[in-house]
Amino acid sequence: MRAVVFDGAELRFDPDRPEPVPGAGEVVVRVLQAGICETDLQLVAGYKGFRGVLGHEFVGVPLTGHLAGRRVVGEINCACGRCDTCRANLPGHCPDRTVLGIVNHDGAFADLVAVPERNLHAVPDSVSTDAAVFTEPLAAAFQIAAQVPLEGGMRIIVLGDGRLGHLCAQVLARRVARLTVVGKHPAKLAVLDALGVETCLLADRPQSRSADVVVECTGSASGLPLALALVRPRGTVVLKTTIAGEQTLSLAPVVVDEMTIVGSRCGPFDQALEALAAGQVHVQPLISERFDLSEGVTAMARAAEPDVLKVLLQVDAASP
Amino acid sequence: MRAVVFDGAELRFDPDRPEPVPGAGEVVVRVLQAGICETDLQLVAGYKGFRGVLGHEFVGVPLTGHLAGRRVVGEINCACGRCDTCRANLPGHCPDRTVLGIVNHDGAFADLVAVPERNLHAVPDSVSTDAAVFTEPLAAAFQIAAQVPLEGGMRIIVLGDGRLGHLCAQVLARRVARLTVVGKHPAKLAVLDALGVETCLLADRPQSRSADVVVECTGSASGLPLALALVRPRGTVVLKTTIAGEQTLSLAPVVVDEMTIVGSRCGPFDQALEALAAGQVHVQPLISERFDLSEGVTAMARAAEPDVLKVLLQVDAASP
Repeated sequence: MRAVVFDGAELRFDPDRPEPVPGAGEVVVRVLQAGICETDLQLVAGYKGFRGVLGHEFVGVPLTGHLAGRRVVGEINCACGRCDTCRANLPGHCPDRTVLGIVNHDGAFADLVAVPERNLHAVPDSVSTDAAVFTEPLAAAFQIAAQVPLEGGMRIIVLGDGRLGHLCAQVLARRVARLTVVGKHPAKLAVLDALGVETCLLADRPQSRSADVVVECTGSASGLPLALALVRPRGTVVLKTTIAGEQTLSLAPVVVDEMTIVGSRCGPFDQALEALAAGQVHVQPLISERFDLSEGVTAMARAAEPDVLKVLLQVDAASP
Repeated sequence: MRAVVFDGAELRFDPDRPEPVPGAGEVVVRVLQAGICETDLQLVAGYKGFRGVLGHEFVGVPLTGHLAGRRVVGEINCACGRCDTCRANLPGHCPDRTVLGIVNHDGAFADLVAVPERNLHAVPDSVSTDAAVFTEPLAAAFQIAAQVPLEGGMRIIVLGDGRLGHLCAQVLARRVARLTVVGKHPAKLAVLDALGVETCLLADRPQSRSADVVVECTGSASGLPLALALVRPRGTVVLKTTIAGEQTLSLAPVVVDEMTIVGSRCGPFDQALEALAAGQVHVQPLISERFDLSEGVTAMARAAEPDVLKVLLQVDAASP
């Protein structure tokens, strides 16, 4: 089969990768479409030492199992199901888990991907494949509200105008009265402006520490210090950026101002699919470009460019 | 008057410091006794660029005001009372505040200290002056339960066997079934052992990430990375250490494991005084040594030694 593979040094398109062998509980899914995420770019930069087929945002059709023949999306954490963490209903944190396209498990930038059957969610007919490919990052945006108590009167700043920042902003703008996206890229902010979301260039950001919650989606080591400079005392910073390596910052202000920093990762697929089906989140404006799977290396380079939002990989040329 | 003064370069005893001039709403308090805190040591190391009379843990007797003649303790944040933060009932976070012996306000290592009258709390007769001098750090320990929802079945690790670690351990051990103090100093841990608190040497710390909550009281830049290695996924690290300068750490695990980091500082004086009056916290075993105010420089050096817990400064030789 075809696949986009990172071997630890080089990213390349492999036209003849062996097909995946499904493990216990897994089914093989024929991939229709996949999305490139900031994490994919970080993995190629060395994050987590991943080697294998990249890709964890996808829409596909299982070849077997109870959802065979239907369009599905898939949660990315492949848990053991037996350990204390799994029994505590936290399979996403199973210490023995693999993660599709991220940790010890081939991903979805390929014709076929093996996925635990229990990870699959059917895509409602009313949700296009283009929209459904956003389910995984959109679920990550919904996770914020699952972790941080939000009240309508709160002021939220979303820091970062990239792919995830856009989705977080759209989800959270429905929950609070005042939300501003602070970003560096006028073209990306214009997409949000057109959706009625308030935006602000980084250079014009608030100089007072007034936000109740700052959602850090910059993908950059500079994001957390900036977030700490925007949040009010006793406020909350939601940390979404995962970057390779260490970073340096001053933590005394976190103590003195009694801030809370909440790490936030994967979220509820059901809520994301419902929001897409209800038309509550607009993802079409986020699609910057699409490439055939065979052009995956070019597509990854394109996704790393500053003015680009979501880049899609068309795996099945007939879809959508 | 006599005072222990840090001038930005040198710590010295000044036998002839001018008496404090009380500001609006302040009363002058005659100091009976004061305690040396990790923050005092950090200030002399450059934290916050403080210059002036050190000291923020004290028991004294106001010369004027409605508590004149009674023993009092005093909250350390001197707020403006007029800004948005003060009106939101967060005077401890007032952006224009001064802080006794820490930020732009002379402290209590002196015969006299000026304190906002509204900051004062009368010490119950049943609480000794020796015990009452622990009110401020004990309140900081009570602040943890005010910020983090605790349940009886939780497992808490207190990291650090210093002054604040001891108080946090005693307060939290009453709230949860399983609490362990992890420290480096057998002599300090033995004090906790004698009080029935479970302890463990750092070298023997748990190798699994099993704690629901880790309270980081090490006073060291190595504390947070260690705390992150002890807390379970979705667990909480309470950060108490304030250190000068920046530190370097990897934050990706905070996101991947969805940890929460909560900065925690000053706490409720009323709860601390109640606990002391009820005999729920034992502070006498924490008193390592006491010095006369005139020996303040020696006392500070002693407080920095590894096996020392609380060092007291006797300001009024007749008390307690």
